[in-house]
Amino acid sequence: MGDRFKVQADVFTDGHDRIEARLLFRRKGSRRWSEIPMNPLGNDHWVGFFDLEELGVYQYTVEAWVDPVTTWCSELERWIEGGADIALELREGATLLRPAAGRARGEEALELEGWIEKLQAWSQDSEILADPSLLLQDPIRLTDTIPPLYLPHADRSRATRPRRSLSVRVDRERARFSSWYEFFPRSTASEEGEHGTFSDAARALPRIAEMGFDVVYLPPIHPVGRTNRKGPNNRVIGAPGDPGSPWAIGGPEGGHTAVHPELGTLDDFRAFRTRAEELGLEVALDVAFQCSPDHPWVTEHPQWFRHRADGSIRYAENPPKKYEDIYPIDFETDDWEALWDGLRDVFLFWMGQGVRIFRVDNPHTKAFPFWEWVIQELLEVDPGVILLSEAFTRPRRMYHLAKVGFHQSYTYFAWRDKGPELAQYMRELRAPGVREFFRPNFWPNTPDILTETLQTGGRPAFMVRLVLAATLTANYGIYGPPFELLEHVPRNPGSEEYLDSEKYQVRTWDLDRPGNLTEFISRVNRIRRENPPLQRDDGLHIHPSDNETLLAFSKTGPEGGDRIVVVVNMDHHHVQSGWIDLDLAALGMEGTGEYEVHDLLAGGRYRWRPGPNYVRLDPGVCPAHIFRIEAPSPDPLRPSRGGEPVA
Amino acid sequence: MGDRFKVQADVFTDGHDRIEARLLFRRKGSRRWSEIPMNPLGNDHWVGFFDLEELGVYQYTVEAWVDPVTTWCSELERWIEGGADIALELREGATLLRPAAGRARGEEALELEGWIEKLQAWSQDSEILADPSLLLQDPIRLTDTIPPLYLPHADRSRATRPRRSLSVRVDRERARFSSWYEFFPRSTASEEGEHGTFSDAARALPRIAEMGFDVVYLPPIHPVGRTNRKGPNNRVIGAPGDPGSPWAIGGPEGGHTAVHPELGTLDDFRAFRTRAEELGLEVALDVAFQCSPDHPWVTEHPQWFRHRADGSIRYAENPPKKYEDIYPIDFETDDWEALWDGLRDVFLFWMGQGVRIFRVDNPHTKAFPFWEWVIQELLEVDPGVILLSEAFTRPRRMYHLAKVGFHQSYTYFAWRDKGPELAQYMRELRAPGVREFFRPNFWPNTPDILTETLQTGGRPAFMVRLVLAATLTANYGIYGPPFELLEHVPRNPGSEEYLDSEKYQVRTWDLDRPGNLTEFISRVNRIRRENPPLQRDDGLHIHPSDNETLLAFSKTGPEGGDRIVVVVNMDHHHVQSGWIDLDLAALGMEGTGEYEVHDLLAGGRYRWRPGPNYVRLDPGVCPAHIFRIEAPSPDPLRPSRGGEPVA
Repeated sequence: MGDRFKVQADVFTDGHDRIEARLLFRRKGSRRWSEIPMNPLGNDHWVGFFDLEELGVYQYTVEAWVDPVTTWCSELERWIEGGADIALELREGATLLRPAAGRARGEEALELEGWIEKLQAWSQDSEILADPSLLLQDPIRLTDTIPPLYLPHADRSRATRPRRSLSVRVDRERARFSSWYEFFPRSTASEEGEHGTFSDAARALPRIAEMGFDVVYLPPIHPVGRTNRKGPNNRVIGAPGDPGSPWAIGGPEGGHTAVHPELGTLDDFRAFRTRAEELGLEVALDVAFQCSPDHPWVTEHPQWFRHRADGSIRYAENPPKKYEDIYPIDFETDDWEALWDGLRDVFLFWMGQGVRIFRVDNPHTKAFPFWEWVIQELLEVDPGVILLSEAFTRPRRMYHLAKVGFHQSYTYFAWRDKGPELAQYMRELRAPGVREFFRPNFWPNTPDILTETLQTGGRPAFMVRLVLAATLTANYGIYGPPFELLEHVPRNPGSEEYLDSEKYQVRTWDLDRPGNLTEFISRVNRIRRENPPLQRDDGLHIHPSDNETLLAFSKTGPEGGDRIVVVVNMDHHHVQSGWIDLDLAALGMEGTGEYEVHDLLAGGRYRWRPGPNYVRLDPGVCPAHIFRIEAPSPDPLRPSRGGEPVA
Repeated sequence: MGDRFKVQADVFTDGHDRIEARLLFRRKGSRRWSEIPMNPLGNDHWVGFFDLEELGVYQYTVEAWVDPVTTWCSELERWIEGGADIALELREGATLLRPAAGRARGEEALELEGWIEKLQAWSQDSEILADPSLLLQDPIRLTDTIPPLYLPHADRSRATRPRRSLSVRVDRERARFSSWYEFFPRSTASEEGEHGTFSDAARALPRIAEMGFDVVYLPPIHPVGRTNRKGPNNRVIGAPGDPGSPWAIGGPEGGHTAVHPELGTLDDFRAFRTRAEELGLEVALDVAFQCSPDHPWVTEHPQWFRHRADGSIRYAENPPKKYEDIYPIDFETDDWEALWDGLRDVFLFWMGQGVRIFRVDNPHTKAFPFWEWVIQELLEVDPGVILLSEAFTRPRRMYHLAKVGFHQSYTYFAWRDKGPELAQYMRELRAPGVREFFRPNFWPNTPDILTETLQTGGRPAFMVRLVLAATLTANYGIYGPPFELLEHVPRNPGSEEYLDSEKYQVRTWDLDRPGNLTEFISRVNRIRRENPPLQRDDGLHIHPSDNETLLAFSKTGPEGGDRIVVVVNMDHHHVQSGWIDLDLAALGMEGTGEYEVHDLLAGGRYRWRPGPNYVRLDPGVCPAHIFRIEAPSPDPLRPSRGGEPVA
């Protein structure tokens, strides 16, 4: 929303005649195209722009035609410059203009008629024929004056367009720039061991808002199934009183549109949401289309599930494992139309409660055509709805989910913990054919993902992963409080599951635990809010470093004015230093002499100069710089050592 | 023709079920698809191949489906390996196989029925249920045996294909590999100043065949216009007796289907063509759709030309220049259907005389849709017809002509005379999105193009440009005898026109002129004929050199076995030496120790080793190496100096 949209097209024809090209665009559903001229960039490549001013879908296309009048104008200039006899050319011009004059109305028709008469008169005017260059000079300036008058009435009956028009969906700003904080509301009670409620969760919100997040995302808030309910640390059968996994959705109290009684009521949820909004936080809900055996749909719509040869419903399974607290939904059911309506209604129900952001659980295991359909349905109700795809699957399937409409997607970021491989991954995500539709949302951790890096890298690892997530992409999120409290012990060696994971038990957190990152996270989020380049995914550039554990990259704003340079020490255990050779051309700073970089994270200011500059990062202090490039030094000749602190 | 065609596709679905994918192909016009299985390459990328065995168009597409039986097989294996209870799985397998058994006939139906019964029996067989791994072992090997039996009868009613099938046109081999020799038959008379005839031209053919060419291309052989006939060196009005330009087509004797009387008769042309064929030479004719004012069409079809305001026919013009010996054809005439038929009939007439190759003059100044239509029409008559596009225009228009059907195209090769820019140009031509449809035909000179390089570079320049044209691309040509006789004087300084050009006058050539390149050209053409990598455009790789005046590149054969390495000194005036660092991986020679390179041009043999090897090229001797890489040395440890001659 609010962006200027750039359309490029190859436009060409045989021969040497002049082409006119127009960019046509309209809101989907509108009958009238707006149009603006496109400009040639050379080599048959043309460009045009329009502004994306409203949410929803715009259609656009290109229309072009071979124009006889502008061709005549340009040839006339060349005949005159070459000293040719132009009497016949002038008569021909009058003939070419006549149909346009016929199409024009009122004042414009009269003006065109006037030119036709003048062209005819000049074709017999000995003074003009003796010195035709008069036609190109004041006051006549024929070839400058005729085209703008004529073009609105050009004959476009043979204009050509591509077979299909294209479309672009305009999303609200938060689809492009968002900072997510995921937490389990049931772990927010003040008393150790108590099940938290929405009121408790509301009391957790000010701290989250102060840290600078703008989306709070809750795991499923629905009744938790009882049958085969999991125990702590994913024990197959839990003990009585175990709270189970929130992703085993549905019980006697209801399914996907009900609220887990221990969290409170729907009214309590709405109060929570209202409190969040007061604090500038949007609530995102988890949509996990799967059912516990106790979900009402199991008895109301048994045909929505797959059955085994003995008539029983098939559990979620990944041979040789079965997940006996969950039934997957059968998207291939004969009753698919009712099923799809029912699933859509889950979204609509929560949209009715004021929720506009959803994180969708494992969408790649559900039918792609369903997503394509349901996202359209939701956007018709509210074009500001945003869906985050939790797909950790192969790239083409993740990209396909973006193509069918998901606004944001989880990525492989969590597992890219070496500088070169992360740089390569960024190149993949920013490649043409991906960047146009795929918006990555980087998460250093989730309730399912405690990476080896976080398990073994200590506090520096948490800081590095946060800085990378928050600066490489404009959308990022953390799962807290485990993140800011540096939780790093896995359930088993080699596992990425948290020990005593909140997925299976209620936790109570000491938010003031020494070494926590609350302050650091607040600073990073403030830097994001204050620096427009960090609010977009475009403008990313990776810069060379002579030490591959130092990853250096920059983000520039859409106008190129603001510039952020990030340097990260990917080695969590050792001081690393090296020379960063910023590509000044990529930063729009060709020919700059010295310039100042201001570390927004640690506060230092350094004078840098073209060529490599020295950087040294101690993970024990701060493993990253987030520099803003300040206006180039007024005195480019003042001597300085690269990387030497200014203040 | 004869190539194996590789089709790659992204094939994926939601969920974890198994996909089957088939490559379908058929000759255009056939109703029956042939099909072969595609294989997954990983990351949802699949590949399949079929052989291009006939000329003309093949259609192909990909069909894929989610298969329940193969999914069941793969899950069964995992259940068994995990020690799960598989009784229900076996019953489910029987249910899944039943519809396929119903679709099968005869023996296959009985076999499938047999499996169904066995699955049901095993589901109650305590021995099997106690040790289900028996199902995966001899003699049962269930999951190996069922799929090939089942798959021909799989339910493909929900299989999916792309919306449109694709097509590939199979051309005859000469479209891929050809060596052209252009000459003016009127300059072949044995007496100085005489107008040569087809009989004279036939006597010129053995020398051309001995040089190793396989296409002889003649400028227009039609009656030359009289009105405003050009004089020598493009003088606007010629003197009586001047022969004029063969591109000013048409006179009282006829137009595009007539033969210029001074060359002989149509019978004489056929005799010339027959003689060429005896020598292994194909005759290519020039098709220039433009008319002299004396062309029969001017009176028979005046509506095929553009008229000016005074009723006169418009000359060919490029303001401020007019070409008063030529009328261009108006492709926008209301009578376009008759015009198109008439132009097509010109091709058909000459195809009737046994001509199967045409060089089309300036196709980019004629309507693209005409070419698309006419090329289809011609290929329906003879799928072996080949058209070379003489378009020197912007890249997208040249590429478009290839897309509408031209088999080969002229290029900017003539003007790329620095190593790095030629390397860059080759990368452009070999880029995905170009290489699939655009076949370059490299010409060091043409009757219109005597480049500055040839004007100033002396004999070495001619040798270099020949070697480059003949080895960078599989299709190339020269305009002789001026090329092999080192003609290099322009009409005016700064012009690319030949002095005393054959375009406007009859010339007599001393073919034994000292220093001529006949022998050198013969050698290069022989190297092309004997080395398959030089007969294709794929397999090109540019290699690094530490001296940018030394351009190094390689061609490898389709099977990767044959390898040619070319090194050219682009500096025509000085000896250049440097180190060529062959990319052995690109040559399929990773891990090779020493190897021998054999210079097919100068005859030397050198022992090279991994890493840079020394090359020194003296333009006064031979400015290029064309190496064949011989089998790697049997003793990779034998010491040698890089680039040291072996013999």
